[in-house]
Amino acid sequence: MPSEPIFDVVQLAHIEMYTPDMAGSLRYFTELLGMQISARDSDSVYLRAYEDFYHHTLKLTKRDLAGLGHCSWRASSPQALERRAKAIEVSGQGKGWIEGDLGHGRAYQFETPGGHRMEVFYEVEYWRCASEQKTRLLNRPQKRPLHGVPVRRIDHINLMSPNPDADAQFMTDVLGFRERELVMPDDAPVRVGSWLAVSNLAHDIAFVMDTSGMRGRLHHICYWYGSPQHAYDAGEMFQEQGIPIEAGPGKHGISQAFFMYVIEPGGNRVELFADCGYLVFDPTFKTVKWKMSEVPGRADAWVGQAFPWSWWNEGTPRSNRKEPVMVPAPALAEAAE
Amino acid sequence: MPSEPIFDVVQLAHIEMYTPDMAGSLRYFTELLGMQISARDSDSVYLRAYEDFYHHTLKLTKRDLAGLGHCSWRASSPQALERRAKAIEVSGQGKGWIEGDLGHGRAYQFETPGGHRMEVFYEVEYWRCASEQKTRLLNRPQKRPLHGVPVRRIDHINLMSPNPDADAQFMTDVLGFRERELVMPDDAPVRVGSWLAVSNLAHDIAFVMDTSGMRGRLHHICYWYGSPQHAYDAGEMFQEQGIPIEAGPGKHGISQAFFMYVIEPGGNRVELFADCGYLVFDPTFKTVKWKMSEVPGRADAWVGQAFPWSWWNEGTPRSNRKEPVMVPAPALAEAAE
Amino acid sequence: MPSEPIFDVVQLAHIEMYTPDMAGSLRYFTELLGMQISARDSDSVYLRAYEDFYHHTLKLTKRDLAGLGHCSWRASSPQALERRAKAIEVSGQGKGWIEGDLGHGRAYQFETPGGHRMEVFYEVEYWRCASEQKTRLLNRPQKRPLHGVPVRRIDHINLMSPNPDADAQFMTDVLGFRERELVMPDDAPVRVGSWLAVSNLAHDIAFVMDTSGMRGRLHHICYWYGSPQHAYDAGEMFQEQGIPIEAGPGKHGISQAFFMYVIEPGGNRVELFADCGYLVFDPTFKTVKWKMSEVPGRADAWVGQAFPWSWWNEGTPRSNRKEPVMVPAPALAEAAE
Amino acid sequence: MPSEPIFDVVQLAHIEMYTPDMAGSLRYFTELLGMQISARDSDSVYLRAYEDFYHHTLKLTKRDLAGLGHCSWRASSPQALERRAKAIEVSGQGKGWIEGDLGHGRAYQFETPGGHRMEVFYEVEYWRCASEQKTRLLNRPQKRPLHGVPVRRIDHINLMSPNPDADAQFMTDVLGFRERELVMPDDAPVRVGSWLAVSNLAHDIAFVMDTSGMRGRLHHICYWYGSPQHAYDAGEMFQEQGIPIEAGPGKHGISQAFFMYVIEPGGNRVELFADCGYLVFDPTFKTVKWKMSEVPGRADAWVGQAFPWSWWNEGTPRSNRKEPVMVPAPALAEAAE
Repeated sequence: MPSEPIFDVVQLAHIEMYTPDMAGSLRYFTELLGMQISARDSDSVYLRAYEDFYHHTLKLTKRDLAGLGHCSWRASSPQALERRAKAIEVSGQGKGWIEGDLGHGRAYQFETPGGHRMEVFYEVEYWRCASEQKTRLLNRPQKRPLHGVPVRRIDHINLMSPNPDADAQFMTDVLGFRERELVMPDDAPVRVGSWLAVSNLAHDIAFVMDTSGMRGRLHHICYWYGSPQHAYDAGEMFQEQGIPIEAGPGKHGISQAFFMYVIEPGGNRVELFADCGYLVFDPTFKTVKWKMSEVPGRADAWVGQAFPWSWWNEGTPRSNRKEPVMVPAPALAEAAE
Repeated sequence: MPSEPIFDVVQLAHIEMYTPDMAGSLRYFTELLGMQISARDSDSVYLRAYEDFYHHTLKLTKRDLAGLGHCSWRASSPQALERRAKAIEVSGQGKGWIEGDLGHGRAYQFETPGGHRMEVFYEVEYWRCASEQKTRLLNRPQKRPLHGVPVRRIDHINLMSPNPDADAQFMTDVLGFRERELVMPDDAPVRVGSWLAVSNLAHDIAFVMDTSGMRGRLHHICYWYGSPQHAYDAGEMFQEQGIPIEAGPGKHGISQAFFMYVIEPGGNRVELFADCGYLVFDPTFKTVKWKMSEVPGRADAWVGQAFPWSWWNEGTPRSNRKEPVMVPAPALAEAAE
Repeated sequence: MPSEPIFDVVQLAHIEMYTPDMAGSLRYFTELLGMQISARDSDSVYLRAYEDFYHHTLKLTKRDLAGLGHCSWRASSPQALERRAKAIEVSGQGKGWIEGDLGHGRAYQFETPGGHRMEVFYEVEYWRCASEQKTRLLNRPQKRPLHGVPVRRIDHINLMSPNPDADAQFMTDVLGFRERELVMPDDAPVRVGSWLAVSNLAHDIAFVMDTSGMRGRLHHICYWYGSPQHAYDAGEMFQEQGIPIEAGPGKHGISQAFFMYVIEPGGNRVELFADCGYLVFDPTFKTVKWKMSEVPGRADAWVGQAFPWSWWNEGTPRSNRKEPVMVPAPALAEAAE
Repeated sequence: MPSEPIFDVVQLAHIEMYTPDMAGSLRYFTELLGMQISARDSDSVYLRAYEDFYHHTLKLTKRDLAGLGHCSWRASSPQALERRAKAIEVSGQGKGWIEGDLGHGRAYQFETPGGHRMEVFYEVEYWRCASEQKTRLLNRPQKRPLHGVPVRRIDHINLMSPNPDADAQFMTDVLGFRERELVMPDDAPVRVGSWLAVSNLAHDIAFVMDTSGMRGRLHHICYWYGSPQHAYDAGEMFQEQGIPIEAGPGKHGISQAFFMYVIEPGGNRVELFADCGYLVFDPTFKTVKWKMSEVPGRADAWVGQAFPWSWWNEGTPRSNRKEPVMVPAPALAEAAE
């Protein structure tokens, strides 16, 4: 019999993101996206969306350069946490245990092959809202905010990697992720993109090729709306409030989700999902494989325009390259016709 | 350390439903809901929605009375199937193995405390569409149909039970379901409704109290649309094509999903979900507990009207009671104000 | 040749509404519906939605009882205003000229047969927003607000009348309204409801039968959203902020518009439209005639539940009758099956 | 006193469009857009959307080259028709009376300064649907079709002109159109685009600059959906059925409407509106003036990507120019930042 699937890591719990403009980033996440501040310490502010159940899902930390601090996964049980910590240690990517942080207990830290810091933990602190924020909708941790176009919950993270093959392998073998979709050049069996999940979502994490020579870059974080209309409401808000929209709204081919990409004042890319795309319940789901020539105007935007060059080549920290390097989208778009 | 969660049963795979009007039911599911016929045998027709990946998700079988044939769950691995079969056998609810059916391999059959037939299996047949139905959207098993208002995939099942407490206990202890939400009378710790999941959905199955004295009744099956607009399009279609709408469209409190209930020509209730409600990723999610007085116009329809008497008291086969028995919704609604 | 259509009155310009709870009404219209205060005087506050182009569309005036102050129509030209003033004077319903009010010039006042005060004017003051509210969207008078679920513009008014026949006749003959839809009992040629327009909207004004013996009552005012999702967002907001929802969201048969009815803190009914229904461009459009038995669950709510008794029988000021008088909706609903 | 507005022309009634691929065009309009064939003659097929009240709104005529046949306006009365015929005759653009066509009575024909054939008429034939197509929704001329993503009604037409200034002048002075929005280069008071209306729509017709040296070209016709979701449903359908999408879905700045542009098999551009944008009720509405530098990613697509070169430069018949002539959209987009 083949080896069984691993169900030890089950949830993207939170993301730490760096911002060189804390005031601007905070205004963006609180006034425009309607997120709540749950705590502050010297360098960081902890935030959550109104349907996030835990203490926080976003930790903003002041730094000179935008980018990823770390991302954090929740294990399904104390035993599951121990098993994964051991497996990571064996893999050689382990960094060791920390005592925890605001909102969660001890965590095992590690670094992916592409240079991204992550951790796994089990003990978590639930958010307890103030009494005037209690809602009669008992399965919601607080009332829907009355300002901005409020996001509902954290959805996923997308990282830039010099070697998505190595990262996909590590996440599946060591942590139990399932690879849902991938992109390869038409003529080479090397991933330029990989979408992986520990839940029924089309993905909880993705890795896309970074040709800049940099390691550990962030492509984007994603928060979730339930309805496409909210992407349009948010789009109008961003246009009027001076937040650049990089792509969309549109409907992805990969993941089938309704998307929009914007750049928050700290310089990080934030995606807003506005439906739930397709969900995968099949435990033996076969990875969907796209050729690069099938990507523009189809895998990237199934309905809507192909992505701009910046989407394919930039992340945070910025590389500030100007020339088209990896995916000259218009050229590919023509080729794909 | 506490016992670990069980992840052996992972998916609602298909439902067998009885219909006394095969022609009417088929017209409903194919012409109006846009479902595809994948096979037929002497008494049954096998159907699937355009984003269902397996051979079928609905087996319609001709019988004098509407109601449930059985529902079927997929295990995560061959080992998981064996473990669950043994656990069910130990529980005393087991019926034994069958060789399989069109579309799947050997299955272990059982009956819930409330009298509903179910099965678990692992080996499954994937749907292979005709070449003219192949789509450039590689993660979709066929093109979106051009007729009716096509449903995307199977979502969940809701069963009427003389004893939801016993069913909820059985599903959690023996099969590994997590109970997400429940309803109890204000003055008695007895479930009149229980919503349980093996996935990140708010529920894959629910049990609601049946006071008719009957066993094994079906409350409804549910197929999924991604967008509320589709419920309105379908609502217009049902109004013009003579299909009775029982409740909605509206937004549930329990599950937060956008819903509509209609009665298909065979007499069974079919729910149409038109967004994905809230999803649960937390492995230690605490069951949300509603009092009966909190249900009307809130847990049933958070936005939209409270449910009619028929919803609370009827299923298939019909009991044909006329008097208000369990939940006199208007009375409760007044009490709840 | 038949007489030509009259195009002198072209727009519902504003409504004056009484409230016994100015603070509550203001919170409702500003914090929840996102409306702007454009002026205040001793007893009144003037408000507008973010896409209303004029100085105000709603004048809230403090009074002991909720209800209608007056409603106000804009003429297409100075000549058109003079023509209509003369026609009203000839009809015997005229009250004479006033010098104007905040936001508009001289107006001719009159009273409808059913006892509602109205006026017609031509000179209007446009809203000039503060510079920080200016938007890059040049056809919008200000930015979309960042609080509540902001309504876009005034839509229509609905009045209760002891004699809708007389009101419909007056509005068409004297003011040039076109009657779009009407409801009559199955066995009597007497309007119990009439929907009339001076624009391409399905209606700018409606009259529904008032059997309470009272005159001049307000049924509801209506503001407009462009998208059904906004009705659901607003519905959640009202549930969490303690605003009663009387009916909907749903899709009207009459007008085909997406609707929701709520009671603002002053006691007046406010409708929220969430799409534009059907528009009428045909200058010889034939009035659509509904029998009373065709109304419940069809003309009232084409998709969604039939309207409650209160909708059919109450307005402001309240009659506080308890017994079903005019339209026992459930009984009719049964009769209609 | 200033001259009064003219309300003689009130509606875009129908469009005759040429197609070199009648079979392909018919499949597109009937199977994909759900339109009905109301009549055929030797060279033409007459079609209507399910909420169009008249005999037809689209006449497809077989020709070697795609493009406009004529477009047709309805007058508000017989007297209005006579007045406009005389005014057109005086203007020197008149072509004289014809006896009528299928679906309407005598019509006065004329040609705009830019070379587009038009007509005005009053007598019209209403569509009478077959009995099985009758709907219980009495204000709808037939049931919503069960195939494709059915459009609801005709919305507007957009024409390419060597001289939009002259056309805008003619339409306002002679026919009574009101100019709602216009685009001018930053440094020259010459219209490169003009949007005009006889109804409350943001526009019934538009003229955009044609620099190809050709006259009388068609930019696009537009049919209407009420909800943005339908543009996405149609977008998926077009992707799977091989219909090219040129731009969108997105939300226009000009008109604020939700749009998508596709090329039908005959080569003509078809726009699909998926909400009603903003409506204009103000009889003295001031024309909104855009500079060319404000257009890309703002006036064209307020939410969504700027339009491609083809949109700005091509129509039917095709000019087949390759080089960027009028509006190098990406360059302008950069300039606009």
